[in-house]
Amino acid sequence: MNAATPQKIGLVGAGLIGGSIARRLARVLPELRLAVHDISPGNAAFVAERHPHAEIAPRIADLAGCDIVIVATPVSAIAGQVAQLLALDPSPVVIDTGSTKAAIVAALAAGGADLSRFVPGHPLAGGVAAGPGEARDTLLISRPFVLTPHDALDSGALATARTLLERLGATVVEMDAEAHDRLLALGSHLPHLIAFALAGMADPERRDLIPHSFRGVAGFAEGDAQMWADIFRANGRELRTSAEKFKKRLDLILAMADEPDPGALLETLAHARANFDALENDA
Amino acid sequence: MNAATPQKIGLVGAGLIGGSIARRLARVLPELRLAVHDISPGNAAFVAERHPHAEIAPRIADLAGCDIVIVATPVSAIAGQVAQLLALDPSPVVIDTGSTKAAIVAALAAGGADLSRFVPGHPLAGGVAAGPGEARDTLLISRPFVLTPHDALDSGALATARTLLERLGATVVEMDAEAHDRLLALGSHLPHLIAFALAGMADPERRDLIPHSFRGVAGFAEGDAQMWADIFRANGRELRTSAEKFKKRLDLILAMADEPDPGALLETLAHARANFDALENDA
Repeated sequence: MNAATPQKIGLVGAGLIGGSIARRLARVLPELRLAVHDISPGNAAFVAERHPHAEIAPRIADLAGCDIVIVATPVSAIAGQVAQLLALDPSPVVIDTGSTKAAIVAALAAGGADLSRFVPGHPLAGGVAAGPGEARDTLLISRPFVLTPHDALDSGALATARTLLERLGATVVEMDAEAHDRLLALGSHLPHLIAFALAGMADPERRDLIPHSFRGVAGFAEGDAQMWADIFRANGRELRTSAEKFKKRLDLILAMADEPDPGALLETLAHARANFDALENDA
Repeated sequence: MNAATPQKIGLVGAGLIGGSIARRLARVLPELRLAVHDISPGNAAFVAERHPHAEIAPRIADLAGCDIVIVATPVSAIAGQVAQLLALDPSPVVIDTGSTKAAIVAALAAGGADLSRFVPGHPLAGGVAAGPGEARDTLLISRPFVLTPHDALDSGALATARTLLERLGATVVEMDAEAHDRLLALGSHLPHLIAFALAGMADPERRDLIPHSFRGVAGFAEGDAQMWADIFRANGRELRTSAEKFKKRLDLILAMADEPDPGALLETLAHARANFDALENDA
């Protein structure tokens, strides 16, 4: 770290992401102090106990004095917590980890917050598992950590966030909030919406006759319902746009399956498969 | 096996299912002779070489003299091959393994075949992998092997099929063809349709930013495009019905995400998750 090395990091949210960040901090920056806040004192203690210099912050106000605070809470809670942090004097650099970005920045701006030290972020990591018990110090390594700088952001705050996240092993990617939300609507929120829609359709009485593919797709409904409800609401517009395109593709394939000539159907399926292969293989 | 123990089994189609059946036969009924037919002589040889008493049948007519023939070819090929087999004198008991059932029986009936010795079947086993190189002798063990008896079926032929399949380790389940096709439309064909529709939507240029969930759902498009084109066409009506219900659920969840009160959305997601949990857990 450079001359502006932080002395103390704050963490709001002691779940999978927060717990994993704390473990990684303990490994690569063990000299840094850590303060952990969570609405569950048990989760905060669980995470703090696994770090050499950690304390529990019972209130968000107790994070005053942190140089950087990372907010890793459900999307619906983020804007309110970030606003409290930005109002501290001096304000820490605040990085959030929410899966939608434009709505959070808009809510903060509407509330009149000074956003100069707020760095909106989202690590593309995690999965179905949740909670600090699932945390691991490798979760963010070499995974994209998207940052979505906005007009009010101070360049020094952005640099501070980048430096810390790269030190944690993440691959920092910058893009604007709308591009992020569109990408995540397609790449994560739509697959989860599909999973929740499909998961409700099967009859548990026939569980012995439900194939592997149904379980594989619907299994993404194993995530936390509250977390996904928050995300679907916060990114509703982009999610609807992606879902409409997806439904059109479903209809197109079904219509092709009805044509006497199988050529168009086969070509469309082969193209989809080739596109997926291109995703899986390095350029 | 009882008094009517078969002496010789025929196999049409030396892919994943056919190859796995041949390996299992070699293990549990090694004294039985096996004749293998495939449009690819290489695949037929690959499977025959792994069985102690196997020969290659260059033509379907060369399967004359088999007591039972198992047809494990793509759905679009099955009816024609089964018709040839049923026309042999004497006709073997013919079991197919296609992922749709009503269309195959209807095509055979329309062609005037004597269906008394045709036992329509479908093992719920396999996955994305294909080809005899992926075959394994455990593939069918304790997996459901659905049989869909029809009005013209001879009860002795059904009993012969059941006995063989149970000897192979499969769990035989009987239901009517329409119930099978409806169940598979929801449980397998719809998830694959979803995968093919989704797989075409991602931009390979952004492959580093495509999350795990997208890959998990779209990954079912890795299957053979020709095989899935056949299935979507053969089970089009049931697939469309399932897809329409699924799209209604997508729309419902999206509409709930737009409501000011998050209660209905949260309840729907939580219910979907609970339904999936009930599928995964034994009663």
